[in-house]
Amino acid sequence: MTDFPKHVEFHEEGPREGFQIEPRSYPIEQRARLIDMLAASGLRRIQVGSFVSPKTVPPMADTESLFEIVPRRAGVRYTALWLNEKGFEKARGVPGLDLEPNLMLYASDAFSRANNNRSMIEMRDQQAAWLDRYSRYGLTVAKVYVMTAFGCNLQGDVPLSAVTDLFRWVIALFRDRGLPLPALVLADTVGRGNPEEVKRRIGAVRNLAPEARIGLHLHDTRGLGSANVYAALQMGIDLFDSSVAGLGGCPFAGHANAAAAGNICTEDMAYLCRELGVETGIDLAALVEAARYAEAIIGRPLNGRVMHTRV
Amino acid sequence: MTDFPKHVEFHEEGPREGFQIEPRSYPIEQRARLIDMLAASGLRRIQVGSFVSPKTVPPMADTESLFEIVPRRAGVRYTALWLNEKGFEKARGVPGLDLEPNLMLYASDAFSRANNNRSMIEMRDQQAAWLDRYSRYGLTVAKVYVMTAFGCNLQGDVPLSAVTDLFRWVIALFRDRGLPLPALVLADTVGRGNPEEVKRRIGAVRNLAPEARIGLHLHDTRGLGSANVYAALQMGIDLFDSSVAGLGGCPFAGHANAAAAGNICTEDMAYLCRELGVETGIDLAALVEAARYAEAIIGRPLNGRVMHTRV
Repeated sequence: MTDFPKHVEFHEEGPREGFQIEPRSYPIEQRARLIDMLAASGLRRIQVGSFVSPKTVPPMADTESLFEIVPRRAGVRYTALWLNEKGFEKARGVPGLDLEPNLMLYASDAFSRANNNRSMIEMRDQQAAWLDRYSRYGLTVAKVYVMTAFGCNLQGDVPLSAVTDLFRWVIALFRDRGLPLPALVLADTVGRGNPEEVKRRIGAVRNLAPEARIGLHLHDTRGLGSANVYAALQMGIDLFDSSVAGLGGCPFAGHANAAAAGNICTEDMAYLCRELGVETGIDLAALVEAARYAEAIIGRPLNGRVMHTRV
Repeated sequence: MTDFPKHVEFHEEGPREGFQIEPRSYPIEQRARLIDMLAASGLRRIQVGSFVSPKTVPPMADTESLFEIVPRRAGVRYTALWLNEKGFEKARGVPGLDLEPNLMLYASDAFSRANNNRSMIEMRDQQAAWLDRYSRYGLTVAKVYVMTAFGCNLQGDVPLSAVTDLFRWVIALFRDRGLPLPALVLADTVGRGNPEEVKRRIGAVRNLAPEARIGLHLHDTRGLGSANVYAALQMGIDLFDSSVAGLGGCPFAGHANAAAAGNICTEDMAYLCRELGVETGIDLAALVEAARYAEAIIGRPLNGRVMHTRV
């Protein structure tokens, strides 16, 4: 009847996405407890924080200390984000951190230049160098992101060909090196996707390499989050990034700054899966407890819906 | 390729749904201005308020005064809700009010008894009497609602047969009287629907009377609002109730009280339609302005997403 996957995996980004955008820092004890509640709910991959410039992103300056106190649970991967060599070197030295490097490419040249001071093509070359560096360290790149895969707040529309060109290049990059294909992740960085475009772009990427796993990184910026996830599930997609309680949005931000706000909400999408009969391995009641705890930490109503009602 | 309708109609309920749940009343001048902004944006049917007990719902006590100051625009229907004879008599006496009576049935006996002190069957008989009363006044019943059509917060699951039995009865009721069939509205009163069930129940109701128009009244209680609308659009549905800015939800309400919170958001769903190439007759930028004005009236961040970013 449908092409729904049997099992869907959520990669939890709330602890990073949620707290990095806040104007202040929150106690690491509370963030550690939240992370442990997320792990206890059945999430198997949790992004704890990032190793980025403490000047640019002050709330992430204590990520190393956070790793020291996060309890470890068997079967859970505790990951982090870095964007340059300095960050990678820091992350390599952190005990208990699961090094899972990703590559990041941009389908919008304007966005790439604004965020990285590099053109799309320069980013591509840089990421190829990163792949070889990771290989030298014996690290596998499991996910390759194409950011702004559904549009860009700077250049507007992003043609499908910009996305498929990049993934075609990625596939060749890995095949040339005899490496297994990573998951190909379409990232709707600024929340411009709609469900029909989600289906169309998934279909186009799948045509490039039917054996590759495809993932989605979605934002609920314009209220289409659950429609986009549902469309992706109809295409058999089984890998999503998401944030507990929808962490990452900020209702008080100016309209322009909020352009990238609001990751899809883990527990709401886990609820969607449950209702559709798709397994997630998540204990929904426990995850809702974690979402409510996140709200208590932040101290204002968060975007999640299920958390504000009964499961 | 798809069965999307060419044109979708949104029946705006924000001015009633949004303000009736608030613990205080808001100035009628502001509410009148909001209603006029909604009409100016292209919405063609706006529920201004309700004629219900001022003791039970104090913020609606001034609905009559509100009608006095709402400017009238050509082509726009300014409607109201009533639940008993006293309310209907009041509404009949209000100049400028477009009398559009609906019938309301309940697929959950528990919900019907809790909200109306009547069983499902008693409600049915009562609504049949209402239909005849409306006919005597020369009024056409354009919509018949089956509430709790996707589940109930009191009895839990609501079988599909409870919904189809009621609509079968409705169809016979209208046909027996030689009346044209009304729009058959599936109301997800407590936000328990999921997109597959939306499709299944629409399909089942359509089978009863393929010539009848089907509408949906959806709540975003559990974050599946846009997924459910997308599923309905895939089934060709072209009639939705909705609320500007998602008015009707209350993030500060207790978890139990919030069970019915959050109508689907008019401008977010109008954005979805625009992205899918479905016409709505709505000027999205103007509607977003109205949503932001609603937020300014209420004085806290509302649920709408598009209003917090760029269209």
